[in-house]
Amino acid sequence: MSALLTDLYQLTMLQAYLEEDLQQTAVFELFVRKLPPQRRFGVAAGLEQALQFLESLAFSDEELQWLAAQHRFSARLIDHLAQLRFAGDVDAMPEGSIFFANEPILRVTAPLPQAQLVESRLLNIVHLQTLIASKAARVVMHAGGRQLVDFGMRRAHGEEAALMAARAAYLAGFDATATAEAGRRFGMPVVGTMAHSFVQAHASESAAFEAFARVWPQRPILLIDTYDTEAGAQKVVALAQRLASAGLQIGGVRLDSGDLAAHARAVRGLFDAAGQRALTIFASGNLDEHRIASLVSTGAPIDGFGVGTALDTSSDAPAIDMVYKLQAYAGEPKRKRSEGKATWPGAKQVCRRRRDDGTLLEDRVQLLGEPVDATPLLQPCMRSGRRLQPAPSLAQVRAFHAEQRAMLPPELRLLEPSSQPFEPVISQALRDMTARIDAAAAARP
Amino acid sequence: MSALLTDLYQLTMLQAYLEEDLQQTAVFELFVRKLPPQRRFGVAAGLEQALQFLESLAFSDEELQWLAAQHRFSARLIDHLAQLRFAGDVDAMPEGSIFFANEPILRVTAPLPQAQLVESRLLNIVHLQTLIASKAARVVMHAGGRQLVDFGMRRAHGEEAALMAARAAYLAGFDATATAEAGRRFGMPVVGTMAHSFVQAHASESAAFEAFARVWPQRPILLIDTYDTEAGAQKVVALAQRLASAGLQIGGVRLDSGDLAAHARAVRGLFDAAGQRALTIFASGNLDEHRIASLVSTGAPIDGFGVGTALDTSSDAPAIDMVYKLQAYAGEPKRKRSEGKATWPGAKQVCRRRRDDGTLLEDRVQLLGEPVDATPLLQPCMRSGRRLQPAPSLAQVRAFHAEQRAMLPPELRLLEPSSQPFEPVISQALRDMTARIDAAAAARP
Repeated sequence: MSALLTDLYQLTMLQAYLEEDLQQTAVFELFVRKLPPQRRFGVAAGLEQALQFLESLAFSDEELQWLAAQHRFSARLIDHLAQLRFAGDVDAMPEGSIFFANEPILRVTAPLPQAQLVESRLLNIVHLQTLIASKAARVVMHAGGRQLVDFGMRRAHGEEAALMAARAAYLAGFDATATAEAGRRFGMPVVGTMAHSFVQAHASESAAFEAFARVWPQRPILLIDTYDTEAGAQKVVALAQRLASAGLQIGGVRLDSGDLAAHARAVRGLFDAAGQRALTIFASGNLDEHRIASLVSTGAPIDGFGVGTALDTSSDAPAIDMVYKLQAYAGEPKRKRSEGKATWPGAKQVCRRRRDDGTLLEDRVQLLGEPVDATPLLQPCMRSGRRLQPAPSLAQVRAFHAEQRAMLPPELRLLEPSSQPFEPVISQALRDMTARIDAAAAARP
Repeated sequence: MSALLTDLYQLTMLQAYLEEDLQQTAVFELFVRKLPPQRRFGVAAGLEQALQFLESLAFSDEELQWLAAQHRFSARLIDHLAQLRFAGDVDAMPEGSIFFANEPILRVTAPLPQAQLVESRLLNIVHLQTLIASKAARVVMHAGGRQLVDFGMRRAHGEEAALMAARAAYLAGFDATATAEAGRRFGMPVVGTMAHSFVQAHASESAAFEAFARVWPQRPILLIDTYDTEAGAQKVVALAQRLASAGLQIGGVRLDSGDLAAHARAVRGLFDAAGQRALTIFASGNLDEHRIASLVSTGAPIDGFGVGTALDTSSDAPAIDMVYKLQAYAGEPKRKRSEGKATWPGAKQVCRRRRDDGTLLEDRVQLLGEPVDATPLLQPCMRSGRRLQPAPSLAQVRAFHAEQRAMLPPELRLLEPSSQPFEPVISQALRDMTARIDAAAAARP
């Protein structure tokens, strides 16, 4: 990745910081100002890629030459960038954590130029996976334990979006992805069988099914809606009976169009009547958490779902209001007071309290120095540019998230917009400090 | 990019195609089944990156080793992939073209395994830029010639999304991007000044403005909403007067929060009253085509707009129903008939007729062999895996798109959903062939 994958203003600001010698320690926090009303919680994800970015940040010769050729920046800035490495501290919620609006999920403490420069790409990394993990968790909560597969690569927004969506969905509880490279990159399960074009390329649907089943005899899944779903299902039954004598077994079928509930019932009935109870039914086609919740709750006989575009583009909310704000500089707490965009100043911690049954009771946002009397969510993960722990495996992150999700009370599991979103308590000390900053600002000429 | 950035089913199908020796010529077409109702037209984009992908497609040793280690695929498939290069033909609408639902925008003609394998990534590439270019064109049409800058990197879905959004927005008429790497990669203008953190890091807003203006004396743009917009504007006036004696000139200000129209009027009034008529006002903050249209049509004194999240995530429609379908194999036209997803079979051309005043009159989708009596939109761009022409410059694409956009009649320029979308005429020969295919299918057992 190019170190120039940043907003140009980071560089114009850096040049000024150098000229003015504003290089003391800055504290920036990354958080969501407001969740979309239907998103009753967020799932923090992307920390691993964020740390990789910070560890490897360096301008290449080609990048520096391009900058110099713009005749915009000083030689001093370009020399500074040539030497620049991220040598700051990072504290963050572990990947898979449940979070709410106004809770810092990642804090950077570093000399101002470093902490400033990394803003654009840090947000770009953490926003993407957090967005998709939060969407995926909604699907997982309402899929009743059915198999869930990420099908979204083709309409994900580019390469990184596709790969990170596969990762984020898996850590949030999906079972697999269709994207081969995600399997290689993250060691996660990959599945895939056939497209309509495979059926169409053959002289008949039956010929396509039989050819596929002979090449892939390990319980293949056959796509049966290219022409007529129920007719396709009948061909599968006939084929299953024919292949049984050769000791071959069909795994099941995929439906990809029409009224999925009605087709699933008809196909299930047809299979069961023919004694093919082991054949499974997998469904795909414009599915999202709402359609899946409806199919599951009405008892549609579907064993698994492929979720594509809606997952990979986070279709109900293709962005969340995630920001990275300066909260302290040179030991002084700082506060942005723009209309509707004011922030809580200072370096902060989030402490979580649970009920005796383990469900979430309260989150409290407090100043970093306040006594911690509940579970602190932000944990040290980088000091002076070096990681404190090896990265957890994706399986560990997935297990941690499952435990986190189990903590959610029923009202936070609903898919509908909430008029009373869960909000963290803001500590009295933080409120008092904010009031002091505002009063001091008002007293200034 | 990894050749494994594809759906696994492409590989399972390829293995079957090899076993069955289904390697004759396939024709796949890439098109949008249905545009979102508010998207009255699409802007084709991403062809350049699609051709780069096809030209460079090759499996690396590492990728092949990973595949082999899955113990899923045959040695024959892996050998085949090791040799595989794309040696097919591509015909496509030039980038920047206006298109409508059911019009092929790109056609691949190649041996079935090659044409099949490239599906997932071709869609992933063309969908992204087409999505963003189509969104950007809506903004451009309603911005009344104001300067437009892509601000969306931080919430774009990853690296490629950010870079391709910058490119797609520029080709659709945006003036610049804030993303430095997009400037390096595509030679497009990049702009950027300061963030709120810059103002906050200083002892006072006035100190921040003055420091920035001295480091960046070329008509700097100052961000004035960190604390109080009008108070910020007054500081800019004072600074402008102070700097004038040193021969320095402030360029203008940026507003990023609150009621942008009201603030712009107040700030404009304040500047004009102080004789600072040359100071410009730039606005950003949750802008999209609707808010910009409203600001422009009500005469808000704003000289330019930064458009971020809504642009880079195509917020009103984060995906469009773009597909890549087999239309012919071994000389036989093919038709998918899935419910609600049926396609027009055969290799096709789109012919466009304009009125005498140059505006769009009619698009006709016809079979490739039919006489062409209007402008054919799909043009040859690759034969046997080699490009026929060098890539046009991004400036040329941008100019071509501007000419295309000028062709749109008033009803296609509206932002609101249309109940009567513009649809291409389907030629009689294409309808007849489709009916013959359906009749033959119905006659089959």
